[in-house]
Amino acid sequence: MNAIRILGLDPGLRRTGWGVVAVDGARLSHVAHGVIAPDHALPLAERLLLLFETVVEIIALHAPHEAAVEETFMTANGASTLKLGHARAAVMIAPAQAGLVVAEYAAKVVKKAVVGTGGADKVQVAFMIARLLPTAGATTADAADALAVAIAHAHARTRLRRLETAR
Amino acid sequence: MNAIRILGLDPGLRRTGWGVVAVDGARLSHVAHGVIAPDHALPLAERLLLLFETVVEIIALHAPHEAAVEETFMTANGASTLKLGHARAAVMIAPAQAGLVVAEYAAKVVKKAVVGTGGADKVQVAFMIARLLPTAGATTADAADALAVAIAHAHARTRLRRLETAR
Repeated sequence: MNAIRILGLDPGLRRTGWGVVAVDGARLSHVAHGVIAPDHALPLAERLLLLFETVVEIIALHAPHEAAVEETFMTANGASTLKLGHARAAVMIAPAQAGLVVAEYAAKVVKKAVVGTGGADKVQVAFMIARLLPTAGATTADAADALAVAIAHAHARTRLRRLETAR
Repeated sequence: MNAIRILGLDPGLRRTGWGVVAVDGARLSHVAHGVIAPDHALPLAERLLLLFETVVEIIALHAPHEAAVEETFMTANGASTLKLGHARAAVMIAPAQAGLVVAEYAAKVVKKAVVGTGGADKVQVAFMIARLLPTAGATTADAADALAVAIAHAHARTRLRRLETAR
């Protein structure tokens, strides 16, 4: 079986984390990761354009086969929720345009896939990312979260394939 | 002076209204309008892609010089706010990509520009759109709101030009 590459995205208007992992059967490896941080002095439309265009470039460079994004938690603060919605759309349109499926995972599911418990904190997630992807080197919290989403998708699609094989 | 064309957008994940008006000095005329309604059975990323790509097509067809979008009101319902944020980003990225300025107006400002009072309802807005743009014909509420945003921008930029001339 050939390795498939998964693009994980952790959207935010100020900082969007991204990470690409390769999955070959049960083997998981790190391809690339980074953070997109649009200048907050730019008008909203241009910040969204920058998020969108950078994800387009990441896809052109790393040619992922599938994409995954964290489901947004609703905060009590409507303005924050709205900003997150804007950023999330900007990064989801790019893989959709490239013909990639964009899977969505709740934060709890992502944490459970990486740490083993849905109640894990950011430090635990970053620690497990360093263990699971030793060649990733030091990642920021945003990039670690994006790699975690990609790993959650890798687990989900492996389970799905097993179920299909068992049928 | 040559006429400039303004694209107005009233974003929504289920229905996004759009309208293009031309402004030549104080003269306002209707160019085109419509509603984009992505199939709600599609995955979120594909619905956002459809909104984005349709606005790209509208811009290619009607070549607006500037764009305007309504500022989003925050609802008590976090899920609705989030959906609106997604749709709004999808329609703002297209004009930004085409190099257009994307102006934002509060709903009150839009209503005041079209009806004369910030407390006007949808029926009054639609009525005034029919008066201001007689060649527009029957418009849906979504398209009328989009045309209203374009008119609000036309008024704002005329005021701005007057101020610049007076300096």
